[in-house]
Amino acid sequence: MTLDLCRLTATEVVKLTKSGELKVEDYAKALIARVEERDPFVHAWAYFSPSIILESARRLDAIPAEKRGPLHGVAVGIKDVIYTKDMPTQQYSPIYKDDHPELDASVVLSLRAMGALIFGKTHTTEFATCQKGPPTCNPHDPTRTAGGSSSGSGAAVGDFQVPLALGTQTGGSTIRPASYNGVYALKPTWNAISREGLKMYSITCDTVGLYSRSIEDLEMLCEIFNLQDDVAPPTAPLSLSGAKFGFVKTHVWPKAEPALITLWEEAKNYLIEAGAEVEEVKLPEIFDNLGTWHRNILHMEGYSSFLGDYLQSPELLDPWVTKHAVNEGKTSRKEQLQAYDEIAKLRPVIDEIASKYTCLVTPSVTGEAPVLEEPLRFTGDASFNLMWTVLHLPVINIPGFKGPNGMPIGLSLVAPRYYEQDLLRTSHAIKDVFAKGGWKL
Amino acid sequence: MTLDLCRLTATEVVKLTKSGELKVEDYAKALIARVEERDPFVHAWAYFSPSIILESARRLDAIPAEKRGPLHGVAVGIKDVIYTKDMPTQQYSPIYKDDHPELDASVVLSLRAMGALIFGKTHTTEFATCQKGPPTCNPHDPTRTAGGSSSGSGAAVGDFQVPLALGTQTGGSTIRPASYNGVYALKPTWNAISREGLKMYSITCDTVGLYSRSIEDLEMLCEIFNLQDDVAPPTAPLSLSGAKFGFVKTHVWPKAEPALITLWEEAKNYLIEAGAEVEEVKLPEIFDNLGTWHRNILHMEGYSSFLGDYLQSPELLDPWVTKHAVNEGKTSRKEQLQAYDEIAKLRPVIDEIASKYTCLVTPSVTGEAPVLEEPLRFTGDASFNLMWTVLHLPVINIPGFKGPNGMPIGLSLVAPRYYEQDLLRTSHAIKDVFAKGGWKL
Repeated sequence: MTLDLCRLTATEVVKLTKSGELKVEDYAKALIARVEERDPFVHAWAYFSPSIILESARRLDAIPAEKRGPLHGVAVGIKDVIYTKDMPTQQYSPIYKDDHPELDASVVLSLRAMGALIFGKTHTTEFATCQKGPPTCNPHDPTRTAGGSSSGSGAAVGDFQVPLALGTQTGGSTIRPASYNGVYALKPTWNAISREGLKMYSITCDTVGLYSRSIEDLEMLCEIFNLQDDVAPPTAPLSLSGAKFGFVKTHVWPKAEPALITLWEEAKNYLIEAGAEVEEVKLPEIFDNLGTWHRNILHMEGYSSFLGDYLQSPELLDPWVTKHAVNEGKTSRKEQLQAYDEIAKLRPVIDEIASKYTCLVTPSVTGEAPVLEEPLRFTGDASFNLMWTVLHLPVINIPGFKGPNGMPIGLSLVAPRYYEQDLLRTSHAIKDVFAKGGWKL
Repeated sequence: MTLDLCRLTATEVVKLTKSGELKVEDYAKALIARVEERDPFVHAWAYFSPSIILESARRLDAIPAEKRGPLHGVAVGIKDVIYTKDMPTQQYSPIYKDDHPELDASVVLSLRAMGALIFGKTHTTEFATCQKGPPTCNPHDPTRTAGGSSSGSGAAVGDFQVPLALGTQTGGSTIRPASYNGVYALKPTWNAISREGLKMYSITCDTVGLYSRSIEDLEMLCEIFNLQDDVAPPTAPLSLSGAKFGFVKTHVWPKAEPALITLWEEAKNYLIEAGAEVEEVKLPEIFDNLGTWHRNILHMEGYSSFLGDYLQSPELLDPWVTKHAVNEGKTSRKEQLQAYDEIAKLRPVIDEIASKYTCLVTPSVTGEAPVLEEPLRFTGDASFNLMWTVLHLPVINIPGFKGPNGMPIGLSLVAPRYYEQDLLRTSHAIKDVFAKGGWKL
């Protein structure tokens, strides 16, 4: 029964808890048991307090059925760069060890108002920056990374410790862990969900990300967070016959590992077999600059973001953070503004390109989750994610494929800005097709 | 002596406190006395605790002279939408009455690291939005508004209660109060100072603003916050002979009151008398859309920013905030994205236009501070400010002129993005010219 309750998606949990068929407290106890069994191996949690969870669960059970929210009792893991009033927020930084501002981030306020059970704080890299990983391991192979920087969120959802978790993405920090852990994730349009109460790295890139083990769950969250398209997509499921997918290798394709090269062709073949059209899309050359522009933006936005911490405690910062705080690379304001202005020009261009297809398909990762090596515990390569982040487009990772070591590899679906609902409808149709790739949680 | 200490600029204070000639505690006591005498009329402070101030002052006095920071002992008022670890942050919202999350905003971290004396929390409108003003009155005429939303910061600096204060600007919330209270203010390039730890309204417009009674003080703050131009301006003072100023009435000029119309011509004449060239600049017509685009952005960014508070406590929100949280005006995503993309195109255009002049000159306000009327306590018209905010350009209010009721009116100097130092150099040269307008603090 314990594992059964843990395997429930959020949508399934709510059906049981709203009616009272399942007490939130019992559900919480099952998840706590799962965490206690598994976390010694996975290390998903930076902060985990059964007593706080059970207290919240009992408070939720006391709410009369007719007043229960759409997420009643659903356990949500919160990345530890997002403030929570009842739990510390430590940012995987020695500066903020045991730090406990009594503040809920905007996204946490919304989750609580909808009845969610805030379950604990999930591991992150320092300030959701840095190449150095936290203690988290991949639940499907503890010798490998769970990705980063939303390491704990991806791992906890992939390991059936919670059905939902919040991450953030500045480069590839939501989508990459989703692929490595074999789960769904949505990185919405930039700022579609308020980033208030998140540690700041890059104001124009940081985005709240959502993890789940089902598309329905992402749909439910989009409903709560007002992620409506201007025109709601048809309620009838998307038929793949007549659908047309634009496969975008991007300029970083040389980083594709053999496993990705193989599944890229498989994915196209599966879609064609399902009746869809498939086209390789070559983006205009100017898009090749996005890597450089993204880096310049992160460096100069990090220059202002990390100044306060640097002035207070320079000796306690990871060198990766310090590099930003002192503008080590001497990026100029001119380069920063050029990056802003040129990328801004490309956003409507990519919207227009994406709108010609049912959606775009692009890699989530270069391959399987890399093997962890001490002391860096590198969380993997974000090269395939960052252009979509800085372009502000919504991206969903669809798991389905399996690499040579039996590890999951997902692909990203991408839509124009503020087409989340449309993208979810497409995801529904595609997920079973990609499932032929052999990965199963 | 009390008023004398209160009249010191930050630069003057630091000279005395760093050497130990003036104890921070004695300085703090003088300011506290000033506040206690004046605040019953001005109502600048939302939170003010002499015991916290004196404790901080004594801690600063204990720092050995060689370790004292560049702001050692300087009292800074903090707008009450900016988190402070040792004081509540109440946002002029019943939701956050007495709320105290124990967190320093990034900008406060930096100020503390530099030795500033965080002096108290200054009044704001609810969440720095809304037309409804807080209890603050104009120190130069208590029947009039001190402006908003940074009401208390503008008033406290204008009333010699503190030499420096932090505000924020999303429309005209820093520059307008500066003009109404007869003080200097810098709204820097967007995100040049980190906005982390500020209540969020509009992520693309909200900007930390700085108040002072001298240009030197703004220079000192720019140094601390890394607001360097790519190329440092010459150290020699700007000579006005040979300088060329672009006077921009903008498309909202019909809102100019007679006092503004008069001083506009005076300002040009004073500059010409000082040897400068002056030119009226008509911006391309596309700039006339900036008001509408700014509104669409604020509405849709407010839609995500205020969701959490709305879901938690809809009954405690000002209707102005609720209007955003429910997207009352049914602004579409298409309109939001059009605003983003079109404004992004205009940013390099206005940079280019501004770079042809020593700086641009534009109104800070429509006229003198309006008379307060209950119950709204309207904080004045921001029409002249919002386009510069959404274009991300640095703006400095230079006081100098006096309206028919003896109230101060300033003018705004505007430079291309990230030309703060250049703009400060120009401000030095212009402030004495505008002083001919008759306003004196």
